[in-house]
Amino acid sequence: MRELYREQLDDVLLDLAQMAQEVSTAVRSATTALLESDLHLAEQVISADDQLDLKQSDIERRAFDLLALQAPVAGELRIIVASLRMVAELERMGDLAAHIAKIARLRYPESAVPETLRPSFVRMGDVAEKMVIAAGQTLHDRNVQSAEELRDRDQEMDELRRTQFRVLLGDDWPYGVEAAVDVALLGRYYERIADHAASMARRIIYVVTGEFPEHEYWPQP
Amino acid sequence: MRELYREQLDDVLLDLAQMAQEVSTAVRSATTALLESDLHLAEQVISADDQLDLKQSDIERRAFDLLALQAPVAGELRIIVASLRMVAELERMGDLAAHIAKIARLRYPESAVPETLRPSFVRMGDVAEKMVIAAGQTLHDRNVQSAEELRDRDQEMDELRRTQFRVLLGDDWPYGVEAAVDVALLGRYYERIADHAASMARRIIYVVTGEFPEHEYWPQP
Repeated sequence: MRELYREQLDDVLLDLAQMAQEVSTAVRSATTALLESDLHLAEQVISADDQLDLKQSDIERRAFDLLALQAPVAGELRIIVASLRMVAELERMGDLAAHIAKIARLRYPESAVPETLRPSFVRMGDVAEKMVIAAGQTLHDRNVQSAEELRDRDQEMDELRRTQFRVLLGDDWPYGVEAAVDVALLGRYYERIADHAASMARRIIYVVTGEFPEHEYWPQP
Repeated sequence: MRELYREQLDDVLLDLAQMAQEVSTAVRSATTALLESDLHLAEQVISADDQLDLKQSDIERRAFDLLALQAPVAGELRIIVASLRMVAELERMGDLAAHIAKIARLRYPESAVPETLRPSFVRMGDVAEKMVIAAGQTLHDRNVQSAEELRDRDQEMDELRRTQFRVLLGDDWPYGVEAAVDVALLGRYYERIADHAASMARRIIYVVTGEFPEHEYWPQP
């Protein structure tokens, strides 16, 4: 009985790590759809989001059943409660990837990203994707050190966003209001994906160490 | 022992309802700060957000202790798990109110909201505030009917956002790129507050009825 329970708990964690993998793919595809004006890929990201929602319900239900049937304590209870939060974060990152894909679709066959800001969005996409992968790995290995990587990447994301704002609000922005609004919202979506990945990592550190790294790793803005 | 536990659970729910009250105040103050270019009030909303974060930690810890020490089942387990989610939603709404206040502060003594869009932001602020209040009341009374109100208001918020985009992207937008970016992000923050309030209401309906009203009340976009 006890062993079956351990197995079920491990399965929940494996599925969370697997979901993180799928979300990182969604983020990469959304970025490609955006930068290459790839309508087909954009549609794919948007439909795949429904699958992530189903996966969330399934993981939530199983985590809830573990709470209800096994009355776990201490470390295991912490893991299950953290899983419930993390699955919500992953679902949200999937939504944000779909938002990015929807902007790509809306502007097709044009691109929502002006030429000047392409390199910046290539970086943003890469940072966001790597952060989701690192969050999934931290979850999988329960390795506190990969959280360090997340901290550095989160700072890079913030810096990319600041730079985009400087370009956007400079006197010589030539691309008009629509492009400015797209860029501001896209930047916001990538930043939020990074926030959720960092928040997942904080939860994992909490599960492993019993302490929140709040002030060390991610100083409040 | 059992009675003490019931009391502690009721206290958690009362504190959640109280937190919803504080968040609704933050939303109202942020809107006033934005529309009246009130720097003092903007600063207040920004500092009050730290208090909401503390309140979140406190409620989270107590809900966790109830899970750990009481091994609740069935309806009570559902309530506690939903509380953990709702406290995160409330904390997030507080962040969003602070984001609105930060834009007000950034543009002070000017206003971030162009004259044409003032009435629209007055409505947005009102809808968001009322939705947070309704979410808190639904929580307090566990009354499924107040959820109806939330549905209607959520639709109004979406309509307000669409109208803002039409104005923003019209050929005759005279306020420049900075104002457009501010309006797009502000609209996004209000929309997210409404989303979180609607999501809280869905959780409460789930706790009360055991069923998610997903498709009836909030059709997927």
